[in-house]
Amino acid sequence: MQRSHPIGIFDSGIGGLTVASAIAQKLPHESIIYFGDTAHFPYGDKSEAAIQAYSVKICDFLLQNHCKAILIACNSASSAAYSLVKVYVGSKSLAINVIDPVIEYCSTHLNNKNIGVIGTVQTIKSGIYEKKLNETDKNITVKSLATKLLAPMIEEGFVDNEVSRAVIYNYLSDNTLNNIDALILGCTHYPLIKNMIYEYYQGKVQLLDSAALVADHLQDILISHNIAASENNIPQLKFFVSDYTTNFEEATKLFFGQKIKLDLHKLWE
Amino acid sequence: MQRSHPIGIFDSGIGGLTVASAIAQKLPHESIIYFGDTAHFPYGDKSEAAIQAYSVKICDFLLQNHCKAILIACNSASSAAYSLVKVYVGSKSLAINVIDPVIEYCSTHLNNKNIGVIGTVQTIKSGIYEKKLNETDKNITVKSLATKLLAPMIEEGFVDNEVSRAVIYNYLSDNTLNNIDALILGCTHYPLIKNMIYEYYQGKVQLLDSAALVADHLQDILISHNIAASENNIPQLKFFVSDYTTNFEEATKLFFGQKIKLDLHKLWE
Repeated sequence: MQRSHPIGIFDSGIGGLTVASAIAQKLPHESIIYFGDTAHFPYGDKSEAAIQAYSVKICDFLLQNHCKAILIACNSASSAAYSLVKVYVGSKSLAINVIDPVIEYCSTHLNNKNIGVIGTVQTIKSGIYEKKLNETDKNITVKSLATKLLAPMIEEGFVDNEVSRAVIYNYLSDNTLNNIDALILGCTHYPLIKNMIYEYYQGKVQLLDSAALVADHLQDILISHNIAASENNIPQLKFFVSDYTTNFEEATKLFFGQKIKLDLHKLWE
Repeated sequence: MQRSHPIGIFDSGIGGLTVASAIAQKLPHESIIYFGDTAHFPYGDKSEAAIQAYSVKICDFLLQNHCKAILIACNSASSAAYSLVKVYVGSKSLAINVIDPVIEYCSTHLNNKNIGVIGTVQTIKSGIYEKKLNETDKNITVKSLATKLLAPMIEEGFVDNEVSRAVIYNYLSDNTLNNIDALILGCTHYPLIKNMIYEYYQGKVQLLDSAALVADHLQDILISHNIAASENNIPQLKFFVSDYTTNFEEATKLFFGQKIKLDLHKLWE
């Protein structure tokens, strides 16, 4: 692992670009290789075994490209495949997920609170946030709700209109989320509707989105391992998908803040 | 091809069960093998080449099971892969799609009319309805709109509430669909929201859903090839998916009218 080597980031599609964007802003000297597994998108409906198999194939690709760190920028894959990925990459690369930095934040700042979690069916059914928050022994009560339609809704560009309001309000008014103090946005798409969720709660519920917390965590871990890019490193940003469509390329603007070029790399030939 | 052999039906997921249900009701003596490619669901976002590769793999499975007819119960796959499937299965099986029976109906009953089409991004971008309706030379004007969020919305069970109303009304009020006489429901999920679409148009626009038209067409073609099941045939219904999750099994009730058992058959081992 060398300082100039890239950071590998992967997701089921292009939602993880919200995380890549936060990292590019926080760590502007780092090179990034992003892989979106659009051939199998979305992971939220896939079985654990399928997500694990896809993750291993993606790690092979990122390791071939000498990534010094591999970040799973997808809650479904972080839940289903992080333990496997950590063992699989071994000493070749650092393995990071989007869940643990959020757990760490809650453990430090939100003792004795009621915390809600929203995410895909796969993430919520895994119970991973509940399990990890319980393990902190900080008397945190967790209330989880699967919000299946939010990710496709955001991909359709419905982030600030009457449709997104109807869908978001329908989910957030579910009794499951009554009396929460904070809400974990447990999907990398959700930062794009953070304003509307804030509007629903009128600022009375703290919103936790992983992108910024993960960027902070990544900075810490690169520094502690002495592999952060130097300030004179010229960063390269590369973006790959396992199935190319122009729709995905057009949608990058929404998630990354600017339109970017996607290159095709098939996982199975 | 023998009378007692099954009808093969495939789709990207479980939406095609609306078609399977119509066929089971119309042709109660026929055996059915249904294959839902849930590992690659949804096809609406996939490239044409990817959908073609998946379709060939699925046809191999259905041919191994001696299907006398193979029905592509998915508009995206009908658009992307029907020509390939027809040649691929050759004389071993009849190839049927969900688009041509609708075109035939329009050509007979809707000359000189304005016809709207709603469907997935893949179906609409292919322009297949427009192309085929133009080829009829019946002076039909076609207006197409991609309605990406409808299929995931229906899968979430939002078929008759304020969310589905907001989403459906948002799409149908698009200027593209002004002044249409009829609307083709170009996705096998959409029969489930037919009532709400009817409500929006207050009965002033004729709604064309393919399930019933396809069942009629299949009956005609089986009779004309002399391979319709006899009345004393004991039908067997089998359902396979390429990635099994309990969510898919639970959702079969919505699409098929009753909960059914899904068996796993992987396309790539």
